[in-house]
Amino acid sequence: MSGKIEPRTLKGFRDTMPALAAARNRMFRTLEGVFESFGYGPIDTPALEYAEILRGKGGDESDKQMFEFEDQGGRRVALRFDLTVPLARFVAEHQSELAFPFRRYHIGPVWRGERPQKGRFREFTQCDADLIGAVGPAADAEIVSMFARAYAALGVEGVVVRLNDRRVLNGLLEIAGIPDKAVKVLRAIDKWDKVGPEGVRQELSAADVEGEAAGRVLAFPACAGATNEATLDAFERLVGGNPRGREGVDALRAVLRLVAAAGVPEAAVRVDPTIARGLDYYTGIVFEAALTSMPEMGSVGAGGRYDDLAGLYTNTRLPGVGFTVGLSRLLEALEEQGRLAGATLDRGVIVTHPEAGDPAGAFALAAAVRAAGFPVETFPEPRKHATQMKFADKKGLRFALTLDPNGTVHGKDLRRGESFDAPTAEAAAAQLRTRV
Amino acid sequence: MSGKIEPRTLKGFRDTMPALAAARNRMFRTLEGVFESFGYGPIDTPALEYAEILRGKGGDESDKQMFEFEDQGGRRVALRFDLTVPLARFVAEHQSELAFPFRRYHIGPVWRGERPQKGRFREFTQCDADLIGAVGPAADAEIVSMFARAYAALGVEGVVVRLNDRRVLNGLLEIAGIPDKAVKVLRAIDKWDKVGPEGVRQELSAADVEGEAAGRVLAFPACAGATNEATLDAFERLVGGNPRGREGVDALRAVLRLVAAAGVPEAAVRVDPTIARGLDYYTGIVFEAALTSMPEMGSVGAGGRYDDLAGLYTNTRLPGVGFTVGLSRLLEALEEQGRLAGATLDRGVIVTHPEAGDPAGAFALAAAVRAAGFPVETFPEPRKHATQMKFADKKGLRFALTLDPNGTVHGKDLRRGESFDAPTAEAAAAQLRTRV
Repeated sequence: MSGKIEPRTLKGFRDTMPALAAARNRMFRTLEGVFESFGYGPIDTPALEYAEILRGKGGDESDKQMFEFEDQGGRRVALRFDLTVPLARFVAEHQSELAFPFRRYHIGPVWRGERPQKGRFREFTQCDADLIGAVGPAADAEIVSMFARAYAALGVEGVVVRLNDRRVLNGLLEIAGIPDKAVKVLRAIDKWDKVGPEGVRQELSAADVEGEAAGRVLAFPACAGATNEATLDAFERLVGGNPRGREGVDALRAVLRLVAAAGVPEAAVRVDPTIARGLDYYTGIVFEAALTSMPEMGSVGAGGRYDDLAGLYTNTRLPGVGFTVGLSRLLEALEEQGRLAGATLDRGVIVTHPEAGDPAGAFALAAAVRAAGFPVETFPEPRKHATQMKFADKKGLRFALTLDPNGTVHGKDLRRGESFDAPTAEAAAAQLRTRV
Repeated sequence: MSGKIEPRTLKGFRDTMPALAAARNRMFRTLEGVFESFGYGPIDTPALEYAEILRGKGGDESDKQMFEFEDQGGRRVALRFDLTVPLARFVAEHQSELAFPFRRYHIGPVWRGERPQKGRFREFTQCDADLIGAVGPAADAEIVSMFARAYAALGVEGVVVRLNDRRVLNGLLEIAGIPDKAVKVLRAIDKWDKVGPEGVRQELSAADVEGEAAGRVLAFPACAGATNEATLDAFERLVGGNPRGREGVDALRAVLRLVAAAGVPEAAVRVDPTIARGLDYYTGIVFEAALTSMPEMGSVGAGGRYDDLAGLYTNTRLPGVGFTVGLSRLLEALEEQGRLAGATLDRGVIVTHPEAGDPAGAFALAAAVRAAGFPVETFPEPRKHATQMKFADKKGLRFALTLDPNGTVHGKDLRRGESFDAPTAEAAAAQLRTRV
């Protein structure tokens, strides 16, 4: 390729091919439908922000990973690395225009200059929903219900929302006399599923939490009962004596009651003492979505309550509760569960072009079948019939229609290998309809 | 705001508020539906590319406007400034995986560091559809049909596709003996609507096109007849003697026949000698969408045929035909035509939270009305009824429902100011349905 520029994408970036892009879009539409059914509206924010808006908000790691540069006007700018910091800036900037409680969702790309590795990309899509400016069980229960509903609507099998409350955990830390060790202890608890009690004990020991304190902490993640009621009773025994712990247990009870009232099946939401979300700045409920059938996949989404969304930009205190749907893992799960079949291509139709002569009849046939609700493409050049069928096969189309000069439509179901004839375009469309 | 960071967006960038974002999304969904009905699939490409991939592809102006910088790994990278250059790179890179003819659409943001001015932004969304790897009238007619169908589906009033062919124009240049002046002459013809015959004569004169040559050129944009047939007859008289001109006229006739066969109304596509798309590298048909009712708005979309999409990256010659939908002008037009009403909020429901006590009944009511297909939000805190209604008003919701402790649902149509009662949640949903 002398003189040519090599066509390549940057490390950690990738193109999305039509089949995957279509599957992703269907997933987005489903999620948007759920969010909108709860009164959440979409927003968008710029990909580029002043670097000072983004810097220092996601920790040192995020700062190092930011795509930051100087623009043509000498401003320090950066590509957003999540949708939460832009939301905080957005809400602070537009406070007076927004109706609070403010419900928004946002689906869009974010950029992180991470070392590329399997399944990790430098550009990926996030999907967040948040309720800003409301506190209490009704707000929390709404978010948990919507979170559970989102996975149900996607048709992912075996999703369970694992729910806990930071106040319960903080009560535990106070009872154990180690409130200053919160970060390390919460991160240790988060690893319970992976490393088990002995691993957590080692993590605690490394953080100088030993003896009775360690015993109290270790009793907690092990306390889950067979039902939410049993787990909450255990919470009460372990932390109910502490005012913060008490508050957390009461909150969980209230949230569960409302989630049930919203029609979410009891099995879909489980109180789980091992959920701590140690890396996030949550202050109330915390939750994750897990796949019971694919536990190795880890969380496919998570969320919680925070005290003050936009404190860096405004003096107005804006508490909120929200979640992120883990799109890439979900796509992976849906693919493994065979639920990513191309809905469009399952109905895709090719109308062949005559090998010679006028394609006007083919165009009219295509228009009629399209009007009947099928995606229809006319082969755009007068090529050999076999070439056209090879194309249909490569693209994975379901049906081929060929107009006979006598007006008959010859049809073929390419998946079943069955042929049929129809006297008119409308009759051909009716034939297709019986087959999908 | 001592110690606070000012919440602001970069010059030329902006947030999209929920009402506009929802309207835009509905527009995207409509366009996607049309594209998919013609067998086009979505793709996505990275926002960031190697700078060498993008540089020099859109002319000097684009290079200057590119957001280009060095990434953490020392690579020169840049944000894409259109979706065409990434398509060329994509097709060259994935040639072996794609089924040709390749039909794709792409809706996504692009970035240009233009001087910000009214209606011009540094980040905006483009919407492109292209058919790659096919030549001839069937391919051209498919793209023109889909282009016309897209505007019809959006419900924009008074859209006309103005169609011409570069070969006709090149024939004209040859007949006038000025093929070397193509760029300047085509740009002059493009201004016909704005500056009229005298203005175009001055432009030609500035390009040293005068006398008989100027006369021949000026006769062309003035030759449009009352029907496409009449205009094509005039084309034939003016350029039919030239082989290239002849080819163009024949192609236009063939395209129009197929567009008609596809069911596009004749009035929706007009052959128009003043369309030249002088700034673009087209080689065959060229077209624009114009609003007859708002001619001052200029084109709301455009496209054409090109010879070789990806010649910079591959030796494979890939001819194509495609278009861009002018989203921002279209949104403006739809807004002026009163067609941007918030479909969601027209059906939006608030279920009030009891001023004191348990909201479980409200949650169950909300879930039932949501299941009936309405977007429903529960007010998430126990506030005064008047406060909750003020929120509903500010957000522009259509209905309010309040559960009486005796089980009756009190409803209010907030737009019509009418009240109604219903004995159950289902009866309340039925009431709402009669009103939308």
